[in-house]
Amino acid sequence: MRARLLEATVECLVERGFAGTSTTLVSQRAGVSRGAQLHHFPTKDALVVAAVEHLSEVRRRELVAAAAALPTGEQRTRAVLGMLADHFTSPVFTAALELWVAARTDPGLLDAVAPLEQRVGRETHRLTVELLGADEHAPGVRELVQATLDLVRGLGLADTITDDARRRSRILDEWARVLDTALKERAP
Amino acid sequence: MRARLLEATVECLVERGFAGTSTTLVSQRAGVSRGAQLHHFPTKDALVVAAVEHLSEVRRRELVAAAAALPTGEQRTRAVLGMLADHFTSPVFTAALELWVAARTDPGLLDAVAPLEQRVGRETHRLTVELLGADEHAPGVRELVQATLDLVRGLGLADTITDDARRRSRILDEWARVLDTALKERAP
Repeated sequence: MRARLLEATVECLVERGFAGTSTTLVSQRAGVSRGAQLHHFPTKDALVVAAVEHLSEVRRRELVAAAAALPTGEQRTRAVLGMLADHFTSPVFTAALELWVAARTDPGLLDAVAPLEQRVGRETHRLTVELLGADEHAPGVRELVQATLDLVRGLGLADTITDDARRRSRILDEWARVLDTALKERAP
Repeated sequence: MRARLLEATVECLVERGFAGTSTTLVSQRAGVSRGAQLHHFPTKDALVVAAVEHLSEVRRRELVAAAAALPTGEQRTRAVLGMLADHFTSPVFTAALELWVAARTDPGLLDAVAPLEQRVGRETHRLTVELLGADEHAPGVRELVQATLDLVRGLGLADTITDDARRRSRILDEWARVLDTALKERAP
């Protein structure tokens, strides 16, 4: 029942945005009674933060699983970038974006969202370092991994109002080339 | 009076977000009568879109003026990136982000916001090409300029909930090095 509520919340955030999401709507969509919903999540904030946390964890496990199928050799960096871009254009990114923007002007929500964002950010960073086989002891490497994640975040934001898949693909092709060269040059 | 209304609207979007912005609040803040406000901008959507359009134009003129003071030589690329990052962490970016995210789930607003975003995006791209002295005829150069703008957009988004200035500065240092090398290699 908890999982059903959390998935209905993410769907609601994606379809109607933060302002259009209410606990009543979510209970209806999940087919869960108001009483049961209030028992699990007494407030809208508790519900939306738990939902994005839950989906981030599900998505992270999917990423780790997908990582096993990534090619090795010359195609690997581009494949890693493609996987990250898919992640940052998925419904869980859209739901997180809604939360993120709402939290900017809502101190109570920000208190709950900021630690979640930091934790998810750290985990995604660590996974990316591992997938790229990057050595962060070398100067500049950490910043290149961060830049890569900020780039896909920017691409994810652009995608929310225009379908951007072709442009995104060409940008990732080029960034894979540049990143590969830069990481090789910086290898200890 | 028009300019006062538009500036009050951007302030309101930055402080209270899209959901917390109303035409009544904006009229009060601008010290303009409701009648006069309704005469200039009959709806909230008309007001917020005009406000972001107006501020984008003001900011674009500021960028062009600031560009004249940019250094030439080795420090130029980093200075251009710093200028762009300042732009994407300014109140006009925050106000545009509010509009952008609200438009995602509001078809009427999207019809007004999408063309504005496209136009501003094209203008910023053109200005960046010019400032970097990049030649887009060379393969990959267009994509590197786009990647640079997606990067600063991602950095701007990250900045909205955590003060990120030091991290951002290190990332831009590294991006400037990589971009300079890549543009030189791709020059015809």
